[in-house]
Amino acid sequence: MLEHYGTHLDAPAHFSLGKTTVDQIPVKQLFGPAVVLDVREQGAKDPDFQLRVPHIEEWEKHHGQVSAGAIALLRTGWALRWPDAKSYRNQDTKGKMHFPGFSAEAAKLLIERKVSGLGCDTMSVEYGASEDFALHRVTLGAGLYHLENLADLSTLPETGAFLIAAPIKLEGGSGGPVRVFALLP
Amino acid sequence: MLEHYGTHLDAPAHFSLGKTTVDQIPVKQLFGPAVVLDVREQGAKDPDFQLRVPHIEEWEKHHGQVSAGAIALLRTGWALRWPDAKSYRNQDTKGKMHFPGFSAEAAKLLIERKVSGLGCDTMSVEYGASEDFALHRVTLGAGLYHLENLADLSTLPETGAFLIAAPIKLEGGSGGPVRVFALLP
Repeated sequence: MLEHYGTHLDAPAHFSLGKTTVDQIPVKQLFGPAVVLDVREQGAKDPDFQLRVPHIEEWEKHHGQVSAGAIALLRTGWALRWPDAKSYRNQDTKGKMHFPGFSAEAAKLLIERKVSGLGCDTMSVEYGASEDFALHRVTLGAGLYHLENLADLSTLPETGAFLIAAPIKLEGGSGGPVRVFALLP
Repeated sequence: MLEHYGTHLDAPAHFSLGKTTVDQIPVKQLFGPAVVLDVREQGAKDPDFQLRVPHIEEWEKHHGQVSAGAIALLRTGWALRWPDAKSYRNQDTKGKMHFPGFSAEAAKLLIERKVSGLGCDTMSVEYGASEDFALHRVTLGAGLYHLENLADLSTLPETGAFLIAAPIKLEGGSGGPVRVFALLP
């Protein structure tokens, strides 16, 4: 079974041997309120857009502090490009991909808030043009997981939905296919 | 991706072309109260044991009528044989398998009760020695799904738990890997 394909979960073990594998993620960490960070407008203007700390602070001004155990979702609108894989990957002539992502410093703030994981409607929670995978090192190193290639997030409210992430329990897997349900308020 | 392997879901399309595929099962049908039918004692004595109508009537005497939208689980104790595949399959010298299952007439009563699906801690909701797959025809034909090779069910109460079955959304799949969570009362 391919581990990092379709809608999938990256386990902390994806980047570091010895870290939690997909079958070991505590079930409690797979259930949590959805924090939806909307960057559709920014991403439409700049496909290399990275969500920064002030954006989260702005969200918190409206909705209160991101709660421990939340799952933070980046809504870029990229899912609407699917199934046009070319437009979804958005590669330049050198093969580099261009789609928005979380910045590493924004991830650090979300880790301080004790979120359980990050998710996105693109191929990766890290922006497509990243060369150093700075975000992956920060988040997976801190025991978070990623939900990638999520379907259209447009019907989710910015706060109030509850997520259930159900990865297939691949023994020792660094990730794997995941079904994600959102319970709407 | 293999569709009928490990802990997996049989979609109605498993036996009938034109029936619901795994990606088309309404989400509402994947959430429901667990009705646990315990046949560990009977299965230990007779590995060809089939759950019959009186067993369900006895369960209902104690817990009230099986509710619409419930997921009926057969608890045989077979999961404890895993990972000893030989003992789990329990084949005789002719290769026929022997493990307990639901009988077709018990399934018909559960369909009358409008359950959403059946599940078991064996390889199949139908008893291992079945040659005609009578149960599969009844249940899948009625739009039910099966959850097979579930892990140990011993901590589930006979009533009061709530199940979330999360199959991977394989387009057009006749079934596929599933993660199943039980919320305990």
